Order: sequence, then C-alpha cells, then structure tokens
Amino acid sequence: MSKYVYMFSEGNAQMRDLLGGKGANLAEMTGLGLPVPRGFTISTEACTRYYEDGETISAEIEAEIFQTLAKTEDMIGKKFGDVKNPYLVSVRSGSRASMPGMMDTILNLGLNDQVVVGLSELTGNARFAYDSYRRFIAMFSDVVMEIPKHLFEDELDQVKSSVGAKLDTDLDADAMREVVRRFKAVYKTQKQVDFPQDPREQLIEAVKAVFRSWNNERAIVYRRMNDIPGSWGTAVNIQEMVYGNMGETSGTGVAFTRNPSTGERKLYGEFLMNAQGEDVVAGIRTPQTIDHLRDVMPDVYEQFTVIADKLERHYRDMQDMEFTIERGQLFMLQTRNGKRTAAAALKVAVDLVEEGMISKEEAIAKVEPRQLDALLHPTFKPSAVKSAVSIAKGLPASPGAASGRVYFSADDATVASERGESVILVRQETSPEDIQGMNVAKGILTGRGGMTSHAAVVARGMGKCCVSGCSELSIREKDGYFMSEDGRRFNEGDWISLDGSTGLVYEGAIESIDAELSGDFATMMAWADEVRTLKIRTNADTVRDAEKAVELGAEGIGLCRTEHMFFEPDRIFAFRQMIVAKTEVARRTALEKILPMQREDFVGLFKAMADRPVTIRLLDPPLHEFLPNTPEEIDHLASELNMSSEALSRLIADLHETNPMMGHRGCRLAVSYPEIAEMQTRAIIEAAIEVNSQNMNVIPEIMIPLVCDVKELKFVKSVIVRTADQIIAEAGVELKYLVGTMIEIPRAALTADEIAEEAEFFSFGTNDLTQMTYGLSRDDAGRILDTYYSRNIFESDPTARLDLVGVGKLMKIASESGRASRPNIKLGICGEHGGDPASITFCHSLNFDYVSCSPFRVPIARLAAAQAALADADLSGQK
Amino acid sequence: MSKYVYMFSEGNAQMRDLLGGKGANLAEMTGLGLPVPRGFTISTEACTRYYEDGETISAEIEAEIFQTLAKTEDMIGKKFGDVKNPYLVSVRSGSRASMPGMMDTILNLGLNDQVVVGLSELTGNARFAYDSYRRFIAMFSDVVMEIPKHLFEDELDQVKSSVGAKLDTDLDADAMREVVRRFKAVYKTQKQVDFPQDPREQLIEAVKAVFRSWNNERAIVYRRMNDIPGSWGTAVNIQEMVYGNMGETSGTGVAFTRNPSTGERKLYGEFLMNAQGEDVVAGIRTPQTIDHLRDVMPDVYEQFTVIADKLERHYRDMQDMEFTIERGQLFMLQTRNGKRTAAAALKVAVDLVEEGMISKEEAIAKVEPRQLDALLHPTFKPSAVKSAVSIAKGLPASPGAASGRVYFSADDATVASERGESVILVRQETSPEDIQGMNVAKGILTGRGGMTSHAAVVARGMGKCCVSGCSELSIREKDGYFMSEDGRRFNEGDWISLDGSTGLVYEGAIESIDAELSGDFATMMAWADEVRTLKIRTNADTVRDAEKAVELGAEGIGLCRTEHMFFEPDRIFAFRQMIVAKTEVARRTALEKILPMQREDFVGLFKAMADRPVTIRLLDPPLHEFLPNTPEEIDHLASELNMSSEALSRLIADLHETNPMMGHRGCRLAVSYPEIAEMQTRAIIEAAIEVNSQNMNVIPEIMIPLVCDVKELKFVKSVIVRTADQIIAEAGVELKYLVGTMIEIPRAALTADEIAEEAEFFSFGTNDLTQMTYGLSRDDAGRILDTYYSRNIFESDPTARLDLVGVGKLMKIASESGRASRPNIKLGICGEHGGDPASITFCHSLNFDYVSCSPFRVPIARLAAAQAALADADLSGQK
Repeated sequence: MSKYVYMFSEGNAQMRDLLGGKGANLAEMTGLGLPVPRGFTISTEACTRYYEDGETISAEIEAEIFQTLAKTEDMIGKKFGDVKNPYLVSVRSGSRASMPGMMDTILNLGLNDQVVVGLSELTGNARFAYDSYRRFIAMFSDVVMEIPKHLFEDELDQVKSSVGAKLDTDLDADAMREVVRRFKAVYKTQKQVDFPQDPREQLIEAVKAVFRSWNNERAIVYRRMNDIPGSWGTAVNIQEMVYGNMGETSGTGVAFTRNPSTGERKLYGEFLMNAQGEDVVAGIRTPQTIDHLRDVMPDVYEQFTVIADKLERHYRDMQDMEFTIERGQLFMLQTRNGKRTAAAALKVAVDLVEEGMISKEEAIAKVEPRQLDALLHPTFKPSAVKSAVSIAKGLPASPGAASGRVYFSADDATVASERGESVILVRQETSPEDIQGMNVAKGILTGRGGMTSHAAVVARGMGKCCVSGCSELSIREKDGYFMSEDGRRFNEGDWISLDGSTGLVYEGAIESIDAELSGDFATMMAWADEVRTLKIRTNADTVRDAEKAVELGAEGIGLCRTEHMFFEPDRIFAFRQMIVAKTEVARRTALEKILPMQREDFVGLFKAMADRPVTIRLLDPPLHEFLPNTPEEIDHLASELNMSSEALSRLIADLHETNPMMGHRGCRLAVSYPEIAEMQTRAIIEAAIEVNSQNMNVIPEIMIPLVCDVKELKFVKSVIVRTADQIIAEAGVELKYLVGTMIEIPRAALTADEIAEEAEFFSFGTNDLTQMTYGLSRDDAGRILDTYYSRNIFESDPTARLDLVGVGKLMKIASESGRASRPNIKLGICGEHGGDPASITFCHSLNFDYVSCSPFRVPIARLAAAQAALADADLSGQK
Repeated sequence: MSKYVYMFSEGNAQMRDLLGGKGANLAEMTGLGLPVPRGFTISTEACTRYYEDGETISAEIEAEIFQTLAKTEDMIGKKFGDVKNPYLVSVRSGSRASMPGMMDTILNLGLNDQVVVGLSELTGNARFAYDSYRRFIAMFSDVVMEIPKHLFEDELDQVKSSVGAKLDTDLDADAMREVVRRFKAVYKTQKQVDFPQDPREQLIEAVKAVFRSWNNERAIVYRRMNDIPGSWGTAVNIQEMVYGNMGETSGTGVAFTRNPSTGERKLYGEFLMNAQGEDVVAGIRTPQTIDHLRDVMPDVYEQFTVIADKLERHYRDMQDMEFTIERGQLFMLQTRNGKRTAAAALKVAVDLVEEGMISKEEAIAKVEPRQLDALLHPTFKPSAVKSAVSIAKGLPASPGAASGRVYFSADDATVASERGESVILVRQETSPEDIQGMNVAKGILTGRGGMTSHAAVVARGMGKCCVSGCSELSIREKDGYFMSEDGRRFNEGDWISLDGSTGLVYEGAIESIDAELSGDFATMMAWADEVRTLKIRTNADTVRDAEKAVELGAEGIGLCRTEHMFFEPDRIFAFRQMIVAKTEVARRTALEKILPMQREDFVGLFKAMADRPVTIRLLDPPLHEFLPNTPEEIDHLASELNMSSEALSRLIADLHETNPMMGHRGCRLAVSYPEIAEMQTRAIIEAAIEVNSQNMNVIPEIMIPLVCDVKELKFVKSVIVRTADQIIAEAGVELKYLVGTMIEIPRAALTADEIAEEAEFFSFGTNDLTQMTYGLSRDDAGRILDTYYSRNIFESDPTARLDLVGVGKLMKIASESGRASRPNIKLGICGEHGGDPASITFCHSLNFDYVSCSPFRVPIARLAAAQAALADADLSGQK
C-alpha cells in the first residue's frame, strides 16, 4: 500500500517533490532540532490521486490522515476536538515550486462552539479564544466555502463601530463573541447549513480545498507563466497551532537573511506583536522592522539571528523565514530560499562565493536566467512611476521602459524622430513595412497581436520596449488618435509611457533609469562562460543589433534575416520593381540595383562581428508582404512603377495565398527565381572578399530556409555554389564558405539523413517547426490558446515554450540522423525558443553546437547554457 | 570493375531493371531460340552513371560498348563501318517501364558516304541503300541533333514533285541519291559541320541522345503521371539491322496475341510490305491487317502465329510484338506484355485463368487497379465524340462524361435541376456552400484549382464528372457567361459536355454510354476479395454515396464528414444562427433545431450500411466557411438573422484567419463549443438506438478530428462519453460505441503512444498530414508544383501521391507507437490517398485494418489490396 502522509520527523529537504517545498523544509528544520510546531504533510501524490479519483479523497487516504493526526496527538499530549485540551492546527498548501495564486493558509482549525470555550478556559484568555475562532470561521468560509470575504469584514466593522473600537485589538472578549455569532450567521445565510462543528469534517474539507486550489484559474495562469507542470500537484501541511495573538509577549513576523532587493548581507524583515500571520499582510497595523525585535525581546531576537544564520549556512542560500512568538517562545513556521530581484540574485550569489560558503558552480545554479532580462533594459524610476497614471494594460511583449510622443505611422514616426523627438509608435498591428518606424521609435504599442506577434518578435530582436495586444485601447490610426477605455483621447504628438515588462501604458512622460551592468553581472557571466559548452549566437539583421549582441557576449550571428534589409526605404522600391518584373531580365535589372546596398549590409555585419561566424539566411517571406494593401498606397506605387493601378492590383491579387505560412516562401522563392539567390550569394561573397582583403578572416555561412526535400536544397545550393565559386575564382582569392539549411518543416526533420548529405549545418527554426508540427498558426492561435488554457489542455503557449514532447522528438530525430549522415555537421537553433532556458537545456542535451537568440537574451542564454552544462555534469556524476 | 554492357545472349526477362523491358525481352527471345537479330544492351546503370558523370559517357563505358560491338561483329561476320560488308545497327531506348515521350529509335546507323556505296553493291539494290541512308540522316538529325523534321520533309516533297512521284516508293535510286544529297546539305546548314561520317561517333552520339531523352520534358511529365522514379534511367539496345524495305518480299508489322480493346482471343495487328518501321506509324500508306499476311506469305504467317503462341504461353500474358520480314525471312524485334483497355485487361486475365494458363493470383496481379476507374463511369459514345468540337482543356479531376446546360451558381443549378434540366455547374472555384449545386449537377467545371481542389475532391467523392482548373476559359459568374480562348461566348442555359477522364470541354451535348460492370469485373473482384487482408471502407456523407459504395463492395464507412450535412439548404440557416450566437444558451437553441435533422442523416446512413461499421467525424471546417462573402449575401443573411449588416460583417471579419488551415477548426471547435460535439454525439447515439431497435446492430465509431495533443482528445472524448452514456442509460438499452481520432497533424503522429491511451482507433488523414509535414498548402501549391516539376525537384504532387519517405515515416512511427500503447487499436486511412494503389500497398505493409476511399475507388482499392497481399506473400515466401 502506498504511503501518502508523512510526519515532519519522517521527511527532509530532499523530499521536495513528494512533500512540497514547505513540507520538506519543515521536516528539515525539525531534523535540525529547530523549534518547529509538530505536524505532518499530506503528499503531492495524494493530490494526484485526488484528481484521479474524480476529485475525492479516498477512504484509504482519509484513514491515513487521521492515523497520523493521532500520532501527533500522542506526541503533544492534546487531542483534536478535545474540549478540555484542544489540539488546533493550521492547514497550508505547499507545492514543489512556490506558487502564489493557490489557497494559502487556514489557521485555528479544530475550533467549534465547545472547543472555543475550552480554549478560553485553558488559556484564561477569552478574547484570544474568540478572536481565534472568528478568524477561523472567516478563513474557512472564504477559502474552503468561497463565501465573499467582505461579508465578514462588514460585520466586523459594524461590531467595531457599535462599541466605538478603531482597531481589532480594541475589541474585548464580549465583542469578539458577538463577532463570532455574526460570522456564523453569515455562514448559515450563505450555505443554508450551520458552520461545521465536527473538526474532522473541517479538516477534510480544508484539505480538499487545498487540492482544488491547485487548479484554480490564477494557479493555472501562474504555472503557465512559470513552466510548472499541472501534473505535479500540491502537498498539504497540517501543523499544530502556535499563537502570535496571545497578548503582548506574542507576535509573528517574516524575515530574510539578506536584503531581497539589493542583496545586502543584513537581516531584513518585519514583525507585529499580538497578531496572527494575516495581520502582517493586511496592513491595518504597521509592522516594525526586524531590528526592533532586539529592543522588544532581546533573547528571542538573539535566538532568531542564530537560527537564521544556521539556516542560511545549512541551505547555502539566502533564506526567507516565517516565525511566531507564543508567550515569549520562538517557533519557526517556514523557511525557504528567498525570492529576490535580479540585482540581489547576482549579489547574493557572488557574495556567497566570496564568503566561501558556496562554489562558483553553485552560484551559477542559483540565478534564474530569465531574471537577468530586467537588468538589461531601462526601467522607470520607482518614485516617478508611483505617481504616474496608468491608462491601459496590454501584454508585456518586450521589456524596458520608454516615454515618447505618439505617432500612428512608420513614416510619421520617422519624420518626428528626425526632428529629434522621442517617439512611441502606436499601431493596430505592425507589418514588415513598419520596420523603419519601429527602428526609430523608443517603444511600440499595438492594439492586436500576442507575445509572438510581429511587433513583439521584432521589438525583442531590437531590444526595444513593446506593449502588444492592448485591446483596451481603441486605436484609430487613420484619424490620428486613440481612446482609452475610460474615454480619454490621445492625439498624435501626445506623450505616453510604456513599461514593456509589465504591459502597462501610462499617460505623460516618466523619468527612467538606464540599465547598468554591475560588477556582479560581469563576474557571473565570466563564471558562466567558463562552464558552458554551448556557443551563444545572436539573431541580428543590423550593425546596431550585432554590436549590441557582441557587447552582451554573442559569439556569432546564428540568424541574419536578409529580408528586413529590403524594407529600408532606399531599397524597397527596387525590390518592388523586382517583384512586378515579368521577365527574368527585368528581375535581374532590379536586383542589380539592390546588390551594392546588400553587399554593404554584409560588409558592415562582418566588421561588427570581427571574424565571429555569421549565418545569413536567404530571402524568406512571401513576396506579397513587400507590397502595399490599401488602395491609396497601391495607386501611389503603381504610378511610381509606371504601371496601371489595375495591373498592380491584379498582381497583388495573384500573389494572394489562402495559407501564406505554407505557401510560396522560403527556398521556394529561390527555386522560382534563382536570380534572387544569385544576387544574395554575390552580395555575401563579395562582402566577405572585401573584408578579408582588410586582414579579416570571415567564413560566411549561407542558410537556405524552408527546405522540405533534399532535392530543393540541392537545387538552391547548386545556384549558390556556382555563383560563389565563380566570384571567388574571378577574384583570385581563397575563401571558405558553408552552405546549410534551416530545419523548420517536419519533413526536413524526418528526412534529415538525406538533407545532411547536402547541408553543412542545420539551424532549427523552431517557430515554423512548432507551427507545422502542431498545425497551429501563430497568427491565429490567440483565441484558441485562451480556451485551451481555461480547459487545462495547454499549460503554455507552444509557440513561446518549446514543446519537448512533439517538436523535441522531431529535433532529436533530425539531430541524430543528420549526424549519422554527416558526423561533423554543425547544429544550432535560431527560433524564438533559442533564448529560452528550458530550450537551451534541451539543445544542450542534444549536443548542439550553439543556440542563437535576440541580442538582449544573450546573457540569459549564457547563464542557461552554463546551468545546463552543470546539470549534465551532476547527472553524469550520479551515474 | 562494373559491367555496363550485356550481349542479348547474356540476359533474360528477369533482368528488366538492368536491361530495360525491351532489352530483357530481346535477351529472353534470344534464349528461346527465336529469330532475333543479334545485338547487345547498354544497361540502365550506364545511364545513371552518365548523369553522375555530368552527362558524359566515361571512357570505360565507351570501351566496353565497342568491345561488345566487336564480339557481335565476329558472330555475324560483318564489320561496323566496313565498306564491303557493313554491319548496320538500330539504336533503341528501353527503360524498366514502357515510356512514351522518350527518344525511340534510330535505324540504319553505321551508314556514311562510302558504306552506302558498299551496301548498294552488296545488295545489288541502290535504291534500298540510298533509301536507308536518307532515312538514317533524317532520324539522326531529328532525334540526336534536334534539327526540325519538317526541313527534311520539305526537301523530300520537292524531290518528289520534281520527278512527279506521289509516294516515297515511287522514287528510284537516283532520286534517292538526290534526297541524300539535299538532306546532308540541310544538316550542314543547320549545324555548320558535315554530317558525321564516323560510324563510332554516330553510335556514341545516338547513345547519349537516348540517355538525354530520359530527362526531356515529356518523359518527366509521363513519369510523374505514372509514378516512375527519375532514378531508374533507361537502357539502350544496339541491334543488327534487318530490312523490311528490301523489296516486295520484305515488310514490317506489329501484332497482339489478343485484341487489346476487347480482350478477344484472336491475333490482332497490321503490317506493311517494303517498308521500315516508321512507315507503319506515319500513315502515308495504309497497312493491311495481320490476317492478310496469310495470303501474302503463308509460311511466314504460319511461323509467326507459332511464335506468337509460344511467346504468350512463355510470358503467360497477352503479347505485343514487332517483327520484320527481310526477303522472306522473319525476324522478331520486340515482344512485351501488351497494353490494353480496362475491359480487355479483365477479359484477358479471366480468360487466361479459364484456359488454365495462369492461376487466379496471377490474374489479380495482371490488372492495373487504376485502370478500373474507366469502367465505373459513363463515357462518351466514340462515334459521337469524334465529331464533337472541343472548346478548352482543363484538368481531368474526376472521371466520367456529362452533358448539360450551363449554370453559374449553386442556386440556379438547383432550380434548373428541379425543372428537370441536365445541369453543368460552372464556377471559378467551388466552396462548401456549393455542395447542393454540385449534388444536382451532372458535371462540374471550374476555372481555378488543381486535382485536389475542393471541386475535384468533392466531385470524386460523389463519383461525378469534373474538369477543374480550366484556365483557358474566362468565367464571368456574375454576368452569366464564359468565353473560350478563341472568343466564343457561352451563356447560362447553353449546352456543353465534359469529359472528366481527359479534361476536355466540348460545346453542345454528346451521347454517352453508361458504365456496365461486366461478368469479368465481378469475377475479378470476387478473386481479389478472397486474397486481400485489408478491409475496404468508403468516405461517404450521404445515403446515395453510401449505397453506391456498398454496391461497389465497400465494407464500411471510414469517413463521414458531418459538415457537408450542414450545408443542406434546410439547415444552413440554423447552423448560421448557431455561429452568430453570442451565448452558449443561444448556441444550444440553434443546435436543437439541427439535432433532429442530423439524427435522421445518421439513421439513413446506418440503414444504408446495414450493420457495417460507420465512422463519423465531428465538425471539422472553420466556422467562417459557413458564412457568406459578398456584401449582398451578407445583407441578406443579416436581415434573415435579424441583426445589422455591420454586426454580421464584423463577426465575419473576426472569424477571418491568416492561415485557416492551421486555425480554429477540427476538435478545436469542440473544445471552444462543447455543445456542438454534444449535439452531434446525441444525434449519432440516438440514431444508433433507433435503428438497433429495428433489429440492427450498429456500433458507431465517433471520430475526433485534428488532434495535436492527447489532452484535447481527452477533453472532447469526455464530452462525448458523458453525453452518450447518459442517453444510453436513459434509453435503458445496451449500445457499444467507439471513440477514436484522426491522425492528421504531425504532432499527433509523434505522440501517438499517448494518444492511443485514449483513442480506440486511428484514422490517418493524410491530406492534412501531408500539407503540414511538407509545410505546403494544397490551396496554394499549384504554381510551386509546376516550378518544382520543371526543376526536377518533385516527381509528383505529394498531395496526390502519398510521400512514403517523410509522411510515411510519420505514419510508421504513429502506427508502431499507437499499437505499443494499445495493441488492438484499429488503424485506417481516410485521406485522398486511401484510394491510391501505392498508398494501399504501404498501408498493407503497416498492417492497417482498413483503407477508406471515395465510393468509385472502392473496386480499385479492393484489387490493390489483393495485389499488396499477394506481393507480401511472395516476399515472405522468398525469405
């Protein structure tokens, strides 16, 4: 028979998966001999079983709970439900990972109309007894029975005003009795039954409520955002009550062993005398800082500092602790590794190494890579943002803070920026035509589109602040204004501010602070670089991006998207001439005009990367993306192109596709128009020859996108090789170059053995690969995903988090069979997932050569790659 | 060292892959001691090598060719290029499969200005010698040097008219000398060099020309249409010349051992005296039927009939033979299994069994399954079609012949049909809204869309004649007419005729003949059914389709698409009410109206299928497919729905998707609106209960489409099971039903082990699976495919022929891992590929339970499944 319930004395900190974080740490502290109230943990497996059994607690588990309860009764000499000497408990959830959003705590469980009397007599403190009972009724009603909290608060307020009390502590025992009476009446009105008097029933209902709360909406959202599987479940901790509300020698508090904001090594926290835990949070009375405890109760303070120090040394990390003082006696209710800001995380980790407490490797493992993002972008000054007025909330699509004047078109934004204005580009949604406007803007705000919309992806690539999908705003681009939900109007030229880390939009300008990469940051990055085996490249299309990425530690470009170069105003016209050309000759004439500009692009990139490898992807998007949509724009372009508007409209209609994602794009363009690939090859090779004549040693990597069959790769490769070899021969130089392919179509992954015969490298384009493997278009997924989250079908957006099960399987097949054909094939990833720590771990496990991500994710990737290498070494050590 | 050249005496009929069909059979006849001119075959491997070596013949192979030539010189006592006793040869291509479109034949090779004199002296027949030479010059110039044929024909005509000759045979030796002189002059003008006089050079150039012709455009198109891999290559046969043009005791002819049109057992063919092979084809002189040979040369006729009989018995099949008589002596130049009509194929196969020559199993293997299609549809009366005027040619999208009056909308077609008119529905393209119009039409003609467009797929499903993608016609639906390329106008109500087997469109009505399934057909089907292990189901949505399919041998329905039912005029309105509903309650109200109609559909289907299994797929297409597009239709519907046109337009815009193929469809609809799945489940289960109460025993199979993750399957399944079990319990009956899923998204195939935990059957939806595995949308593939064919990247349309390499790999993964999770899981295929013989063989190899195809492909599938089973047994026998 399985065991589902564990005494604290049976567990330890290693049993986190089974007991949850809280339970495991309570067990560990118990084992360390610290003053922990006795109790036991109902395991996460019991939670899983609860869901398997159709949301019921089996008789077997219920029996085990009460058997264990009985054991603790024996230990402490009190009995659950005993009127004379009652054993009261707290019920608290605790999953593997700390999870706000779930049911947290019920205190004083076990009280009923009889027991409260006994408690009153036992303690000689009627006020305390009824205070505890009313708290219990309110908490139980709220979290177990979902009765609105304010109903109880209203009653409490009425009693307070009837006796002229200001604070809860002003109420005497009689008033508390009245509060209890009223609370029970509320319960009865709401539930049509009396408040449950059987402590055993109370306990089982509370346990169920904890289990249920694992799947409440907030918990699901939190898990999705933090990659926590729904299958983990939560544990429940049942613990003997100790009371911080037994008078002036009692109290409760929380403290960190170091400052969680700055990392400073100094006890940090606050406490409240004569109170239970929720009073500290409620904020009615102002808690005192932990230093004051030294004055109030010097012995307790001394004992606490010793324990805090012991716990930090024991866990080798900053601790976040909860404690209660019951009539002068200290009890530890919780300890855990404390949450901290990015800056604090770095400082704590580096300090702990310097203090000799941990190794560099342990320090690397302690910093959450994704946290680093916050350090890399400007933020609003906290004092300034406090007084700012938020007008809407969208998706936090790309971090950073920006203020500027509103403009509604890329052209207007560009003109304003040339005047020296700070610009926020506001669009319903962006398209590749907006690149120039996005480039000059301080920040981007869109009304539609998710975390992986065009605006979001491009902004992240640029390291630029972006709030996307802000549907609360009605954006009238044409009319030059937008409206907030409360009816305020913002015109072109008005100032607004965006926080891309929270998704908040503010009116007016807000002062911001630039990112500063502290010494701790540099130290940590250096340590990470020593450890990791994966190379980190960047996705960069411009010299600016490339330089930023190198500054942030990029070791090469994994993806240069050449099409973004075509949207530059000085070349879009030539490119459009190419598209409308009816013959190969006319197409070549137009391409000739683009060639020198594109060559200069590559010269710039090669120089910026200073001999680091650069992978350049040939033209990828469907041609219709380069043509205008509105009748006015079409008329304008037609006259520029010297053709009729009808003819241009017809051409645009001809290029229309039902499913452009699976249409005429990628290498299919090069198959149709080899002259485009020729021109691009020429630009790349000539640029490489030019910079290499200046003492550089560039080996360009030419990448063919959207391959589904080795024969199309072969065809395009032959165009590239023929062109390149001729240029190299004519120049009379030696130049090495590589030709490889994206693996972004399922069939390419499935036939990677054949494809590797022709490709010198694979770069996994996991954006498209995910879309096609799921049959789910990123552009259309929004509504579907919301439903899927609410039905608990998806736990995260597969286009944002790499799906290791399905897409990962394809990647594994492709890596293995690619290497089987060509043992030295270079493997990398360049999709959006390339900067995601979980994906990086996976790529490490597949023995990839590199991951490539947007410039601002490079430090995250460096750290994640180091962590993956360490975890790998640990694992192999264990074997 | 590899061997590339084989004497006829070294080969046999089993060496077809290496020697090509022609070469293998020449070798076999040589081995049988038949009178075959001596020679040798350059193998298909030499062709492959030619392409590998950059389209050159290696020195090694060239040496081997001339060594072998020398051996045959010794055998026959003549020398290649010898002026006194010249050895002249024919050069003929011959690949594994017979392939029109490739270079066929060069005769008289080895002649030059000296040799022709020697030949003249040797034979004492100057006219013959120069006739042979001029033929050789013209053929060599045409097929090897690509000089336009008509240049030679013009010269011949001039000489003929200058001497007053009517026929070639009227020209004497001098005139022939003059023809030779002129032909050589043409060659020199065209090529700036003299006609090659070196016989060795002539030979090598001819061999190269054969190799080159393997990849000419017509050959590629033919291979694509017939599933012949480009990697096979062709062999070249070099054979001593024998002459049918040596006077009145010489001649040449072709004959079949049976009638290739009807299968009748009677020598069938024709011959021409004093002629070479091409004269028979050229049609200047009318050949005589083979019977007349008995009168002309009785001994030769007798010898030929004995040989024909011997060959038929030897090959155990109808033979197609070429022969030449040189001065009274018979030579066999070729034999092969003769091509035949579908009717003849059946009659020959059945007769051969009855004659005791072959077994039933051999008979099954002899009939090409795809040929059966021609037997199942009406055809135009040959005499009537001869005088018909063709106005355009489109794609032969769905076989059959139909005449009717032109209508341009589904509604007009329906009204006309109700008046009793025969209707041809003509549309630019069709959409699901046109179903009703397609249903009443005799045939369908579209201007756009390929072989797998909506019109084509639906028409094939209905077994209805369809010509799709007829871009030669300008179709003006709105204005009620279409124009042919030559400017003729066809108005609504005009008669036209369609041949869905050729793609031809005719003006006026043409008399047609109904399909008649002869006794041979039934016999062959019965034999096939004895042998096959795969079950054959049908894709059918209507009672009519179901009944037709059962008549053609279907053993169940593998795919019933419920959405087609919603397009029926009496229910589309309710369905649209459901779509525009803002609340679940309103949706349920609309669904309530559809329920009884849908239930009746299923009652009808169950009855039509009489206890055979029926798989019903829940709603699949995106909802916007059910809403109108044009402003007028939107206005009309809005007023019917009692909402504003703006509101309806907004709703339609909201439903718009960038990539609908990867959008909100399939089970994603059921996840969003479980009430739809509930209603459909209710209709299915209630229908099953109703028919089972009438002594039937239906076990419905409910199929969930577009699953990508086991959790979505689990969710929808739970809706189905809850609904079904409640209805069954309330009815107090016993009813078994199955719940399964389509495997049509790559991720479903990759995670089939998980999915099989929930699914009781898998049905591979290879249409979508192919699109997503290739990242290629069927709707947008047209232009891409043409380019890909011309670049030799694709050899066939992957949406039409199952890709065994990539898609097949996914199917294998899914089958194996699905069976590993659930050993008794039922596996089937229901995509368009389900009726394709190559796919059926593959499904047999994966040990599927069934394939499902459109009703008219059921007989094809029955035969293909039998052939797969036989091939399998052969293979296991060999092991």
